[in-house]
Amino acid sequence: MHPVPVDRSTAEALDVADPLARFRDDFELPAGPSRGPVPIYLAGNSLGLRSRSAVRAVRRELDRWGSRAIAGWDERWLDLAGETADRLADLTGARPGSVRVADSTTVSLHKLADAALGSDEGRPDVVAEAGVFPTDRYILDAVAARRGGKVRVLEGIPDADAVADVADARVGLVALSHVDFRTGALLDLPGITDVTHRAGALSLWDLSHSVGVVPTGLDAAGADMAVGCTYKYLFGGPGSPAFVYARPGLSDRLKSPIPGWFGHAEPFAMDPTYRPAPGVGRFLSGTPPLLSLAALSGALDVVLDAGVGDIRAKSELLTGLAIEVAEELLSGDGVEVATPRRADRRGSQVALRHPDGWRVTRMLVEELGVTADFRDPDIVRLGLSPLTTRYADVVEALDRMHAGLVDRAHERFAPDRPSVT
Amino acid sequence: MHPVPVDRSTAEALDVADPLARFRDDFELPAGPSRGPVPIYLAGNSLGLRSRSAVRAVRRELDRWGSRAIAGWDERWLDLAGETADRLADLTGARPGSVRVADSTTVSLHKLADAALGSDEGRPDVVAEAGVFPTDRYILDAVAARRGGKVRVLEGIPDADAVADVADARVGLVALSHVDFRTGALLDLPGITDVTHRAGALSLWDLSHSVGVVPTGLDAAGADMAVGCTYKYLFGGPGSPAFVYARPGLSDRLKSPIPGWFGHAEPFAMDPTYRPAPGVGRFLSGTPPLLSLAALSGALDVVLDAGVGDIRAKSELLTGLAIEVAEELLSGDGVEVATPRRADRRGSQVALRHPDGWRVTRMLVEELGVTADFRDPDIVRLGLSPLTTRYADVVEALDRMHAGLVDRAHERFAPDRPSVT
Repeated sequence: MHPVPVDRSTAEALDVADPLARFRDDFELPAGPSRGPVPIYLAGNSLGLRSRSAVRAVRRELDRWGSRAIAGWDERWLDLAGETADRLADLTGARPGSVRVADSTTVSLHKLADAALGSDEGRPDVVAEAGVFPTDRYILDAVAARRGGKVRVLEGIPDADAVADVADARVGLVALSHVDFRTGALLDLPGITDVTHRAGALSLWDLSHSVGVVPTGLDAAGADMAVGCTYKYLFGGPGSPAFVYARPGLSDRLKSPIPGWFGHAEPFAMDPTYRPAPGVGRFLSGTPPLLSLAALSGALDVVLDAGVGDIRAKSELLTGLAIEVAEELLSGDGVEVATPRRADRRGSQVALRHPDGWRVTRMLVEELGVTADFRDPDIVRLGLSPLTTRYADVVEALDRMHAGLVDRAHERFAPDRPSVT
Repeated sequence: MHPVPVDRSTAEALDVADPLARFRDDFELPAGPSRGPVPIYLAGNSLGLRSRSAVRAVRRELDRWGSRAIAGWDERWLDLAGETADRLADLTGARPGSVRVADSTTVSLHKLADAALGSDEGRPDVVAEAGVFPTDRYILDAVAARRGGKVRVLEGIPDADAVADVADARVGLVALSHVDFRTGALLDLPGITDVTHRAGALSLWDLSHSVGVVPTGLDAAGADMAVGCTYKYLFGGPGSPAFVYARPGLSDRLKSPIPGWFGHAEPFAMDPTYRPAPGVGRFLSGTPPLLSLAALSGALDVVLDAGVGDIRAKSELLTGLAIEVAEELLSGDGVEVATPRRADRRGSQVALRHPDGWRVTRMLVEELGVTADFRDPDIVRLGLSPLTTRYADVVEALDRMHAGLVDRAHERFAPDRPSVT
């Protein structure tokens, strides 16, 4: 773990020396109320801020729609989807051509999970973590049930041993989140992929909470499949389309459950018979939402310019700082850190447990100018997005939280039930 | 059939008297080359033109993203999807609450078709028309095959009798396009829905080529399900999200194959167990692409202001004019009209057959300033979008086509193969 400063002046010095500081000017910071504290946005793990390059990219495609209409497809739009996908491949350590961008994360996960189980009818079961984001669980339950299988649930933070223990000959798919959406725990992607393969199953990684802040190395790890949300640390804007990855060599053997024209070998041949595109391209279905895709494309300019290596380095320092300050300042306030202390075992958020976490979160948002969010049962999430969050923001936000908790210690924040740990 | 004028001055007089003429100023007309003929855009059936209100709506949500970030969801974005869906319900003659907007047309069709066949395991077959848009066919083939069924294909323009003949006790779903994407033929939605019900099957209508230009009356017809593309006559912009309709009373019995969090009864409760939202809401899956949705929402302002009644009236006149002029002017040039002569049996496009249709289309687009498109094997499609197409445009475009064909009669347009009819 990196040594971290806890005082404000050292945090400010870190900001001055931050090689990523210059990128912050590319983003719009949410306006606060005209009076009251300066806003601090710690929800970049929910929705990344708007970059100027995203706005420019949307305007460019709006203009193209206006001036070129249908000719926009030939001129730019078909390429835009492929280029964006290749840049996402670059970010995730995947080979060019092995990623596509199209639908929501939920729809994307459905396609890959269904295709995975379809590739081996004798293995209808899925391994997933108990705390997985609900939509992933719904999808995995549905695709397993369709083939007579079920989801085997791993409690706690799954590691390679836990996966090896449960992945028997009925398990066709191990589908885990690279970073846990509640605690920020980062799983051992290469190690778990390895035991998954030794168990004869396929691996599917949900990179929603890691892509852009943690190098994922899909190709190096031999990961089979992945999906990821693009509106968090990739700043694609509300509902920007997700991506799918399928390993070259494997993807040609997979069958998409939603074989649409964009996934056809020749989409515009208007062939009455479906012939899947080679590779991961078969997982496209319909027309991508172009304006939302354009925003993502513009936002990626900034992320790729900054580079995921530097972003990760700052992320480790930011989260380390938050953990240290929280432990020093808030442990007397009933707050407990739920995020792993080891930098290489966490993503870019810090989860703070408080028995009255929901009301603590409301206080942060409504009174203290700190945008954070709450997750059941007791977690206050602080998303630290290295391109938009300063070290001083972390110290200031936790200072405000401490002051707020001390002020209200005799009121509603007096714990009336034991902390859930 | 309406009497139509074939001379230019009468067409111009019709434009002057056109109650929809004022809406044309709301749209951006594609720029042509600096020299050469004034552009005429007849591809509104592929991609509707950009309205000023669509641009404003996108800018508004871009601004909200910038200033409000994640708070945009509570403030506006969740409502925007529901409101847009209710306006689409209004346009399609469906009850408020019975429509949702989210994914691509392909993904939407997949969800509904799969749910329909899932509702009765003894009826795994689907009825579809031979000339259906390819992506629909791929999806219907896939969902039928998954349940051991197959697609029964109707040749020609399907009517109620043809459906009654083929819909036996193994048919669970009759899935047809309201308007054919090649010929522009308009099917008898109420009559076919009725025989579908008498055969014990469910009806699923693809409204992509009718919504916004033909009153669909889903509720009055008792239609079970529908999907529709929003970037054609609804001007939603490239890849704008499609809509799904499921009849109240039926929808509660259907099961979405992609049960995501947005289709959960309480999306933000983060419930580990899926409980479908009541009604059609269960067919939502993930986060909608907000900027693309915003463009659609803005565009609908214009469509709803104009009203589908007036739009349909003008559409019938425009297509009638195009047919009459084509028959008078182009029949000596090897051109044949493939669109039904009866106004109540066609949508808002006119399909012209020519043995060398592909090269005729290239000539129109590249030399004559007329944006049209080609569809296999021999169809030149002219999309007449009443909010952006003038009567004079129709006459002028066909005049240019005639002149081009006459000029080139001794060159490449000399038919070197018999006309395919």
